[in-house]
Amino acid sequence: MLTIDKIYDASNVLKEVIRQTDMIYAPNLSDKCSVYLKTENLQVTGSFKVRGAYYKISGLSDEEKAHGVIACSAGNHAQGVALAAAHSGIKAVICLPEGAPISKVEATKRYGAEVCMVKGVYDDAYNKAISLRDEKNYTFIHPFDDPDVIAGQGTIGLEILEQLPDADVIAVPIGGGGLISGVAYIVKHIRPNCRVYGVQSAGAASMVNSIHDNKIETLDDVNTIADGIKVKTPGDLTFEMCKKYVDGVVTVTDDEVSAAILTLMEQQKLVSEGAGAVPVAAVMFDKIPDIEGKKVCCLVSGGNIDVTILSRVIERGLKMSGRTAGITIALSDKPGQLAAVSAIVANTGGNVVSVNYDSTDLDMNITDCYLKISVETRDFAHIEQIKTALKEAGFAVK
Amino acid sequence: MLTIDKIYDASNVLKEVIRQTDMIYAPNLSDKCSVYLKTENLQVTGSFKVRGAYYKISGLSDEEKAHGVIACSAGNHAQGVALAAAHSGIKAVICLPEGAPISKVEATKRYGAEVCMVKGVYDDAYNKAISLRDEKNYTFIHPFDDPDVIAGQGTIGLEILEQLPDADVIAVPIGGGGLISGVAYIVKHIRPNCRVYGVQSAGAASMVNSIHDNKIETLDDVNTIADGIKVKTPGDLTFEMCKKYVDGVVTVTDDEVSAAILTLMEQQKLVSEGAGAVPVAAVMFDKIPDIEGKKVCCLVSGGNIDVTILSRVIERGLKMSGRTAGITIALSDKPGQLAAVSAIVANTGGNVVSVNYDSTDLDMNITDCYLKISVETRDFAHIEQIKTALKEAGFAVK
Repeated sequence: MLTIDKIYDASNVLKEVIRQTDMIYAPNLSDKCSVYLKTENLQVTGSFKVRGAYYKISGLSDEEKAHGVIACSAGNHAQGVALAAAHSGIKAVICLPEGAPISKVEATKRYGAEVCMVKGVYDDAYNKAISLRDEKNYTFIHPFDDPDVIAGQGTIGLEILEQLPDADVIAVPIGGGGLISGVAYIVKHIRPNCRVYGVQSAGAASMVNSIHDNKIETLDDVNTIADGIKVKTPGDLTFEMCKKYVDGVVTVTDDEVSAAILTLMEQQKLVSEGAGAVPVAAVMFDKIPDIEGKKVCCLVSGGNIDVTILSRVIERGLKMSGRTAGITIALSDKPGQLAAVSAIVANTGGNVVSVNYDSTDLDMNITDCYLKISVETRDFAHIEQIKTALKEAGFAVK
Repeated sequence: MLTIDKIYDASNVLKEVIRQTDMIYAPNLSDKCSVYLKTENLQVTGSFKVRGAYYKISGLSDEEKAHGVIACSAGNHAQGVALAAAHSGIKAVICLPEGAPISKVEATKRYGAEVCMVKGVYDDAYNKAISLRDEKNYTFIHPFDDPDVIAGQGTIGLEILEQLPDADVIAVPIGGGGLISGVAYIVKHIRPNCRVYGVQSAGAASMVNSIHDNKIETLDDVNTIADGIKVKTPGDLTFEMCKKYVDGVVTVTDDEVSAAILTLMEQQKLVSEGAGAVPVAAVMFDKIPDIEGKKVCCLVSGGNIDVTILSRVIERGLKMSGRTAGITIALSDKPGQLAAVSAIVANTGGNVVSVNYDSTDLDMNITDCYLKISVETRDFAHIEQIKTALKEAGFAVK
């Protein structure tokens, strides 16, 4: 059972392995409230998950430790369990679905875990883990629905209260609900006036739905950039704790999450994964009630984002903020046109980064074509300035 | 004059404005030594520069404060001076060359400074700043060649010795030399056995050349991704201090810096600018002598990198590590070929992200063309696997 003492105990035990991550003031993230970031993306393994995993493992009996542990995850929980087991000197087996990103597989192996690749999807890997547990007497380390795991995550709540004792609001990502259960439990026991909000992705709002209907519900389908909180069903325990201790659960869209990831990079020099950025997105896009003038702590839970995804998030964010633009111009296909367009773009301070011709559109004369250019720009006003200059020079900007 | 007392004094004065940035253990950055990161990229304004600027301004007379200060910079120094002046409640004018990135101009304005855009390049902005200083009695805040500025930067050395008392080596970026002068001065006075190395970009190695020839030299041309240390001439004071207190200065290439930026993002969840990443590059690519088994502190001096540059660094890094590949296939231009190629790539676990046809090569039959695809891959072995599968299916992979 979860108790306050257990969270304090976890806090002591964890000192051996984890970092007390910084609380960083982030004045540029909101005009409305004072934002502080609890930077668990800078935790060892790049996410908070190691806290719950290590505390759970530290409480196993000698016999359980001798058998070893098993877990199923393609993400942060895998690395958390792997590192925790390595520190405890016990065997860990991690079942991963075959399509898991090579970077996460490699990271899990690097921490010394035995990786078991399972054909199929997450559910197949989960079933394999359960059957291996039964066969080999491993202890299964649940990613969230376990009081010891929750106690480990709750230590973040203690640190927040120590680092920002006058926090008015704490915003916490929700996937299965383990993190927020621990944080809300300890915060409500120590500082009941501090509000705790959960944030889910709109494409995986299982806790929102379950709380709304007052029963645990399973989503048919989950779809979000925030893969760390892409969970179809809340836990039994975490559902009860969220109902009891959490002030509200809000959702954010993938575009809002992308904007938050980009803002964290540009303003705070922090790499966050989608799940880690949802609290920041909730503040930036005003999803949390009554935060005007308040001190708001956003729990940035992790930073394990694939750089290929990050690259796409940046590109999307640049487009959304007017810093790259695609411009299409209908040309009569005669020499010198590209040179003329290029000169105009350069004179207005733009920087052409790619050029494509398309002469296959049936609406055009056979000698005409579309010139499609990508331009690095300063902002939306700059894009308009370039388009205006092109039009004034007689070009047909689409 | 620089003294130990002055650096301690700066350390006290700075408590009002700066964060004591974290020292973060980064076990995955080297197999050879234990790397620790002093994360000044997480400093307010995103760089260490605010330390020197604020300490310099704090020591001005009331009359000087009443007149205000002026500086010339398109980067971190501009933001440092702007924030420092705002905190001290005095006027700041920052001269910027006209082509300065809009993001840096906006950041400087946001801290409350008056921005003076000057036609031309950095030297024009500098001349304008000097003439404004003479005309309006502003105090000019030099970016590096000033004992008070150096004392402010030296406070980082004090923090490093406190946070990592048994550091064997400290690696520090060198542009003009202000940062390393302060750090090396205090470290050599308190812990003379701790070695201090400077790191410059190979494309802007002014301090390396000057120390080698034992006289201050000016580079004709500087060219590097690390714009924060793109300095043509060392300072008079900083040159003398580097000769006296620094154990050696090494250089890194832009490709090495790019790899370090990407590694800091992936492994440590930290955004670093080029100048901030040079010490990490020096460790990763083994430029610093005798670090086997040692505790090495890399001073990550700043994180103000343009996201468009960051996006290119990621793309380059992905190519260099085999995680994207361009594959060119000679096709006879008949229906179904793209479908066949796509199916093979998909079956081998690759992900096609762009497709281009080129049918204009004079070496080809008029009915043939080149199909150029970009594919997301796991590593170089995966790229080979895809190419082999294509060849086995009869495609002519270039």
